Amino acid sequence: MLLMMMSSEYVMKLGEGHAHVVPVTVVFVAVLCLCLVIGHFLRENRWVNESITAILIGCLAGTIILFISKGKSSHILRFDEEVFFIYLLPPIIFNAGFQVKKKQFFHNFFTIMLFGVVGVFISTTIISAGTMWLFPKFGFVGLTTRDYLGIGTIFSSTDTVCTLQVLHQDETPLLYSLVFGEGVVNDATSVVLFNTVQKLDVNRLHGRQAVHILWDFLYLFSTSTALGVSAGLLTAYILKGLYFGRHCTVREIALMVLMAYLSYMLAELLNLSGILTVFFCGIFMSHYAWHNTTESSKITTRYVFATMSFIAETFIFLYVGMDALDIEKWKLSKLRVWTLLVICTILIFLILLGRAAFVFPLSVLSNYANRNASRSSTVTLKHQVIIWWAGLMRGAVSIALAFKEFTHSGVTWDPVNATMVTTTVIVVLFSTISMMQVFGLLTKPLVSCLLPPHDAKIGDLSREPTISKEDMRLPLLSFEESAATNVQRAKDSLSMLLERPVHTIHHYWRRFDDAYMRPIFGGRRSNNSSS
Amino acid sequence: MLLMMMSSEYVMKLGEGHAHVVPVTVVFVAVLCLCLVIGHFLRENRWVNESITAILIGCLAGTIILFISKGKSSHILRFDEEVFFIYLLPPIIFNAGFQVKKKQFFHNFFTIMLFGVVGVFISTTIISAGTMWLFPKFGFVGLTTRDYLGIGTIFSSTDTVCTLQVLHQDETPLLYSLVFGEGVVNDATSVVLFNTVQKLDVNRLHGRQAVHILWDFLYLFSTSTALGVSAGLLTAYILKGLYFGRHCTVREIALMVLMAYLSYMLAELLNLSGILTVFFCGIFMSHYAWHNTTESSKITTRYVFATMSFIAETFIFLYVGMDALDIEKWKLSKLRVWTLLVICTILIFLILLGRAAFVFPLSVLSNYANRNASRSSTVTLKHQVIIWWAGLMRGAVSIALAFKEFTHSGVTWDPVNATMVTTTVIVVLFSTISMMQVFGLLTKPLVSCLLPPHDAKIGDLSREPTISKEDMRLPLLSFEESAATNVQRAKDSLSMLLERPVHTIHHYWRRFDDAYMRPIFGGRRSNNSSS
Repeated sequence: MLLMMMSSEYVMKLGEGHAHVVPVTVVFVAVLCLCLVIGHFLRENRWVNESITAILIGCLAGTIILFISKGKSSHILRFDEEVFFIYLLPPIIFNAGFQVKKKQFFHNFFTIMLFGVVGVFISTTIISAGTMWLFPKFGFVGLTTRDYLGIGTIFSSTDTVCTLQVLHQDETPLLYSLVFGEGVVNDATSVVLFNTVQKLDVNRLHGRQAVHILWDFLYLFSTSTALGVSAGLLTAYILKGLYFGRHCTVREIALMVLMAYLSYMLAELLNLSGILTVFFCGIFMSHYAWHNTTESSKITTRYVFATMSFIAETFIFLYVGMDALDIEKWKLSKLRVWTLLVICTILIFLILLGRAAFVFPLSVLSNYANRNASRSSTVTLKHQVIIWWAGLMRGAVSIALAFKEFTHSGVTWDPVNATMVTTTVIVVLFSTISMMQVFGLLTKPLVSCLLPPHDAKIGDLSREPTISKEDMRLPLLSFEESAATNVQRAKDSLSMLLERPVHTIHHYWRRFDDAYMRPIFGGRRSNNSSS
Repeated sequence: MLLMMMSSEYVMKLGEGHAHVVPVTVVFVAVLCLCLVIGHFLRENRWVNESITAILIGCLAGTIILFISKGKSSHILRFDEEVFFIYLLPPIIFNAGFQVKKKQFFHNFFTIMLFGVVGVFISTTIISAGTMWLFPKFGFVGLTTRDYLGIGTIFSSTDTVCTLQVLHQDETPLLYSLVFGEGVVNDATSVVLFNTVQKLDVNRLHGRQAVHILWDFLYLFSTSTALGVSAGLLTAYILKGLYFGRHCTVREIALMVLMAYLSYMLAELLNLSGILTVFFCGIFMSHYAWHNTTESSKITTRYVFATMSFIAETFIFLYVGMDALDIEKWKLSKLRVWTLLVICTILIFLILLGRAAFVFPLSVLSNYANRNASRSSTVTLKHQVIIWWAGLMRGAVSIALAFKEFTHSGVTWDPVNATMVTTTVIVVLFSTISMMQVFGLLTKPLVSCLLPPHDAKIGDLSREPTISKEDMRLPLLSFEESAATNVQRAKDSLSMLLERPVHTIHHYWRRFDDAYMRPIFGGRRSNNSSS
């Protein structure tokens, strides 16, 4: 009966014409609940995961709607990339920053930045050049230079959520940290790069333009980070300085949520990268502000942000599933199945190539920079294969960017643009579903094979104490700080300092943090300020 | 600089034209944060409260915007009563149901229903008849019969949030329970009655119509309640039955939030009262579903719902403050200040009269029904004065209903309608601010005077054991259940059963709850199932 009420006349944009919002919301929320329950049942299953469940349920719902609306439409919400960027993405990224294991993240900061920033540049270049060269050869023309550059960034953003379900933080801490860290930085970089490309004057593309892109990018990166850090510190200051003595959980939570959202929107208003801002806001909130709140606020915020992120992600994948059957775009693309297949194959090939082109060289570079560091920081060839493998999936950010590039508020009447949107959805679906299937089959064996339990155990044993030693020297400590002996640490610290210049920065930051930052903005006082 | 960017061109509807949403959101969220911090400082102040802070800051922001936009407009968001009913009201009402002290609420269920349902009917009749008779006498014509009936319901919904800051649950449990309970039921009744009136054919108003209204109302009330109860029980069943053995906090919280929202939207879709549905959904979720979740979910949900409700309320009051300076409506109403003053005075007089007309008679009725009950259930004349006094404030629901009746998506070009909207805002502002001021001066003395500490103490002493005895017999137990001796309780129970027929229902419900409901839907097992 409910579904009967939502024929094509209810196909609409979120937030427009409220009289029609009610049935759409009812169906969408009901399907979301269904996803939640079914996803829970399939949690132990190695073949599917959250995202795939949502996509499949979305497809099913799409089919039902297609059937009811007699082939007119398969989705009840038109994808609005602004809704995605204004309401769905901020909680996901903020949560990533809030929950990231700062210890590991900052430990591998240099390598993560190499992969997440330089890697995207390399990947974008290869995919853009590759499509520009190959697409016309197979008879697919009509894209501008800007479109090709857009395609490069669209297919350079990875989705590592699935991978992280297979890798375990405790078994392979270095790998987990690298894959997660790269995933977050990569998302931010893709969006920033995409926006830079959009503003580009492609008609006068020469050497100076490349410098301009890099400059734009560095400017965006630094100002966005600075804004996020300021927002995080301001929140911490308000919570510590003003609320002292009389805490109120509800107010604390509200302030954290609102300040995080404010930082994102402010960055968007100033044409900065909201995604980077809110990520660093999350990191600084969990490092300072979180410690200034009541015990119940601590528990609540941790789960609230995770829940919001979870709902937003499920929502996106559900939508992608529904949109996969978008009959209008399929009709509009006017392409033979053969051409579509070729385009998708080209893109998937370029994704594989583009990723290989930066993972292996940059790993060597990272190893060279860390040559004096302990063995735990070395990215072995086996690691490199897993990192390459882990970042092949494309996700929600790709979809959103594709809609932004090729549609106008989710609508397009141009066959070429319609093809690109359809292709993106197919590549995302293919990479997520098939790679998940392959993952189910291969990744666990791959991880165990490349890092055999024998080796892994030795690695763990030799790594464990090293990490816990190094951890104490790192600025942003995780909550599960292990208490090692101070004497040994002080000794090691001196010799390490001489050996490893990269970690010296950490040391000084740590001292600065203890001496100035924590007294002002709050946060856990370390128990070994001398080291 | 920010404010410079939001001249009148940014005056817009929430959720329309996303390119313009960003600056509006930034300003609104920033002002919300400001409210939070300032509100916190003024928390100890007896003269102002949360709502007034928000209204005043809203007025201030309105003035600044008016100044910047050079007198064109004073608000950045156009009030959309659909936004209010779809996004802001559900969390407030759900939280009320979720946090209500069920023990007290069901204890005084009969009296609360008398005040909250019958009271609204009486009040609406008096205000409608009064305005219909008095408005034309003072030269204010142009309203239809339906408008007059609408005005009756608009000004019958009370806002008891402020009152509850003065009354204390522990000092005056009966009063607190009655005022809070009436506030919630009253909100629901007003909205239901308002919707019933809207569908009314006023041209053929006769005796059968009155029966029809009553029938409609009863139908809405029962079906809405049933839907809410079902949604609550379904959630409890899913959480208990399906999730057994492997709990996941994030999923649990997401399911509770989504199911609550689903119940509200489903009720709206089926033209029922979402407000009642979500209220009962909240009660049943906290009675059954809440007990089936992990410890962290319990803490998180309690604060999350409170936070969402808090933000929604602050948002509404902030908006009301901004709208108070709506220059367009002021110009449009074309009335002399004198007439406006007369209309407001009439309305405030009728509100006072309408409330008096049901509080005192119904209290007598309630006392008569509870004549055999313990002294704690008796509503004394002093109590009656405080209850009458406590419900004089008008709040967000009045505003929203007025916008729904007299505007089309927040816009009106009719002078009479503009006048009614302006009048409603003035009455709400006046009742909230002035009564809060008077409250600051009078209520505490009034409460202490009417219930002097001497008397209150005796009352407390004599009441405490009675309540704790009775509480154990009540079905929906609060979390702070006191452990009394079972023997005494069993004895009392028998004699009480014979004396007090109203409480026999509770007794049977309790047994039913223990025997059938709790085993299926979960929830705390009582430790005295024999009583």
